[in-house]
Amino acid sequence: MAIGSVVALAGGVGGAKLAQGLAEVLGPGKLTVVVNTADDFEYLGLYICPDLDTVMYTLCDLHNLETGWGLESESWNFLEALREIGGDTWFRLGDRDLATHIERTHRMRSGEKLGAITADFCAKMGTSVRVLPMSDDPVRTMVDTDIGLIPFQEYFVRLGCSPKVRGFEFEGIENAVFNPLASESLKEQDLKAVIICPSNPYVSIAPILSLPSVRNQLRDVVVPIIAVSPIVGGQAIKGPAAKMMRELGCNPSALSVAKGYEDALDGFVIDITDADESSKIEELGQRVLVTETIMTSIESKKRLAKNIIDFASEIGATHI
Amino acid sequence: MAIGSVVALAGGVGGAKLAQGLAEVLGPGKLTVVVNTADDFEYLGLYICPDLDTVMYTLCDLHNLETGWGLESESWNFLEALREIGGDTWFRLGDRDLATHIERTHRMRSGEKLGAITADFCAKMGTSVRVLPMSDDPVRTMVDTDIGLIPFQEYFVRLGCSPKVRGFEFEGIENAVFNPLASESLKEQDLKAVIICPSNPYVSIAPILSLPSVRNQLRDVVVPIIAVSPIVGGQAIKGPAAKMMRELGCNPSALSVAKGYEDALDGFVIDITDADESSKIEELGQRVLVTETIMTSIESKKRLAKNIIDFASEIGATHI
Repeated sequence: MAIGSVVALAGGVGGAKLAQGLAEVLGPGKLTVVVNTADDFEYLGLYICPDLDTVMYTLCDLHNLETGWGLESESWNFLEALREIGGDTWFRLGDRDLATHIERTHRMRSGEKLGAITADFCAKMGTSVRVLPMSDDPVRTMVDTDIGLIPFQEYFVRLGCSPKVRGFEFEGIENAVFNPLASESLKEQDLKAVIICPSNPYVSIAPILSLPSVRNQLRDVVVPIIAVSPIVGGQAIKGPAAKMMRELGCNPSALSVAKGYEDALDGFVIDITDADESSKIEELGQRVLVTETIMTSIESKKRLAKNIIDFASEIGATHI
Repeated sequence: MAIGSVVALAGGVGGAKLAQGLAEVLGPGKLTVVVNTADDFEYLGLYICPDLDTVMYTLCDLHNLETGWGLESESWNFLEALREIGGDTWFRLGDRDLATHIERTHRMRSGEKLGAITADFCAKMGTSVRVLPMSDDPVRTMVDTDIGLIPFQEYFVRLGCSPKVRGFEFEGIENAVFNPLASESLKEQDLKAVIICPSNPYVSIAPILSLPSVRNQLRDVVVPIIAVSPIVGGQAIKGPAAKMMRELGCNPSALSVAKGYEDALDGFVIDITDADESSKIEELGQRVLVTETIMTSIESKKRLAKNIIDFASEIGATHI
């Protein structure tokens, strides 16, 4: 049976893992990953795209499993030399990783678009998955905290997520255009499902959903829209999602995530750990898949991807 | 006996070697090195200062003896990764070396001057020698060749000096201001000598001498001005100086170099290999020191430095 195409919305590590599983299960040319760029920033004059790089490196199997970001077999000689001359080193850039940032920055300053550069990098690094920045226009997540409004990477990396979160702003979002290729991919004839990856709902997925027209476009999509909970057993697999939920006065649970996505979803995928939340999520009008969602190997990534695609088929059969 | 201060004019490797010897012989706080910046260029969006870095790295004993440029114990992981994503790699940037270029570029884009950044780098890397870019303003050597007018680094690195040289232009020279600290150092009370290092006369020394007011300032200097020949036995110790001389219709010899500097010099230092040119150079009105000028060790650098300073004393005694 030929499987249709899938559009996945993704942030960093969790999104990248599921994207890798989906790519394996779907085969060449069937997966489009639309990646959050609201955590992009300029550092040392370089244009850095943390989520985009994590997805790209993971799909090319070049990702660093130890750190969860950057490239495998990385060296840190640049960083060490930078420290010696008194440069900023709070954001760690590996020697090989630097090639991505320097070449991208150079090409962007020469007028090339982020999307075009990303496509070229993906081809050079060896993935046929279509990795699309959510927009070629700059959007910047600002975190409203108890110490003020701070850029996301300052909050996330420099301050290790320690400030208490009160809310988020996506600077530039009003004028950012949803990537036209992403828009097209949502209209493909053989589209089977839209999958919201287990990424941080506030800072990875919300920026994509907040781009002008995206919610409308998702409303027009006739295939199932399915999200995977990034919260398992009340905790985020990685990152500050659960901490953020608590600070925003929300119980960190799969149910809370499902509520947040409420109007956008047809189906929701939760971990077996959270099976008891299933009926409450169904009351929101979402179909629920209870399965193993923790991805620790390529096998578990593929298994989850396969289960989600089967789930989409089930929903799809009764959907229209 | 307290030795006075010395101002050295320098390009890359030859200049850096003699500067190291002078620094050792003169002791702390006595040496100012004014460095050519006309071979600076932008590469991959980074501001690169080849001569300045060679001098700085050499004085800090961090220089790469094998390559003649860059840092010792360098790694090349950035370059390898850049090649893999299709970036330009004709100018080789090492991982540690990149810290210098990235931090400098970042600080320059933030409004800091090249001179101030260089002073900070020297302090951090550990030399007390005053290393001064000849100007904070951009000057760019363009090489007029049989294949057209090309930027110096294209000629020097990318094309390996293969085009035939017809002349040189120093773009921006009319509006470039001689470094005020260099200007001051030429007026210091205890100035003992101005030394033109054994650097390429056309592309390392000529840009410095071509800056507005520099020749006038040197004319006003009351201490001996002494140049060291970069040509030994008709050959350049390093680089294309001899090839350039031939292509410009000039016999590559110490005598030719002395003629080129004619009006600026009080003394000229040649290698023992070229002792037979001594009388012809003296006919130009220059005092001549014949000594070993090839610097292959710190000892030979110090010996040459010492000999030049003694030579300056001799000339100085009869100079005013």
